[in-house]
Amino acid sequence: MTLDDAKFLALAFEEAKAGYEEGGIPIGAVLVSKDGKVLGRGRNKRVQEGNNILHGETSALQNAGRLAPEAYKGATMYTTLSPCDMCTGACLLFGIPRVVVGENKSWLGGEAYLKSRGVEVVVMDDPQCLELMQKFMTEKPDVWNEDVGGNLEGVGH
Amino acid sequence: MTLDDAKFLALAFEEAKAGYEEGGIPIGAVLVSKDGKVLGRGRNKRVQEGNNILHGETSALQNAGRLAPEAYKGATMYTTLSPCDMCTGACLLFGIPRVVVGENKSWLGGEAYLKSRGVEVVVMDDPQCLELMQKFMTEKPDVWNEDVGGNLEGVGH
Repeated sequence: MTLDDAKFLALAFEEAKAGYEEGGIPIGAVLVSKDGKVLGRGRNKRVQEGNNILHGETSALQNAGRLAPEAYKGATMYTTLSPCDMCTGACLLFGIPRVVVGENKSWLGGEAYLKSRGVEVVVMDDPQCLELMQKFMTEKPDVWNEDVGGNLEGVGH
Repeated sequence: MTLDDAKFLALAFEEAKAGYEEGGIPIGAVLVSKDGKVLGRGRNKRVQEGNNILHGETSALQNAGRLAPEAYKGATMYTTLSPCDMCTGACLLFGIPRVVVGENKSWLGGEAYLKSRGVEVVVMDDPQCLELMQKFMTEKPDVWNEDVGGNLEGVGH
């Protein structure tokens, strides 16, 4: 963990909080280039847009736009929650070498698989990320189970 | 392979062909429910929409809309080309138990990983899918290398 990691995770948390305030699934992500530039940020949009492939990470990637493969070299994906199988795969597809996870107590995703493929994974155990996720999971278990929560056969389970 | 597999792969190929005609990356996919209903179809939209997360499979999933997890039970994802890491992960996330691949000679994706996670993978070795993909890769290697083609560290490589 570095000071920059805390700064960029805070941006991902802003996305998650905005998602919560919209009535959505509060997971946010920020993609940051090797030289510390925010390439894209986003949040889960299942509820807001009825879009089931827009998770935090895929949303950040989409918002980064059409980039050359070089843009992802040395980049870091910051995400408030451990990445699901799709977002794990998205990080691998784009060759993102480092993933910083806010917390993985609410749900554990593809961290082991990322590591097995050579990706550096840093878990921040952030209390704010955990608190927001726990609040949402208690308030709207049905929405959570419709999304990643329903993936009981996920990597971590 | 069944007659239905050939029929639905042909729909995925229609998507791929439409993508080629639009100047895009010609990969298409169709998601079909257990009882043979087309839930969604789509194609790679990197060129057409500048959208780097819309591959054939993710596009079909997005176009299927916000569905309950039960909708994916027993479903089959038909895709003209072997799925990349992201689309492999998307199939796992949604719990899609069967993936039918048009061809994997142009590029080999996450088939082994899908199988290791219990997904049935059927490779059709379809000459039309292969021909279209080869044509595109020869005509526009730069665009191909910007997308999946540039993922030289992909599962199959």
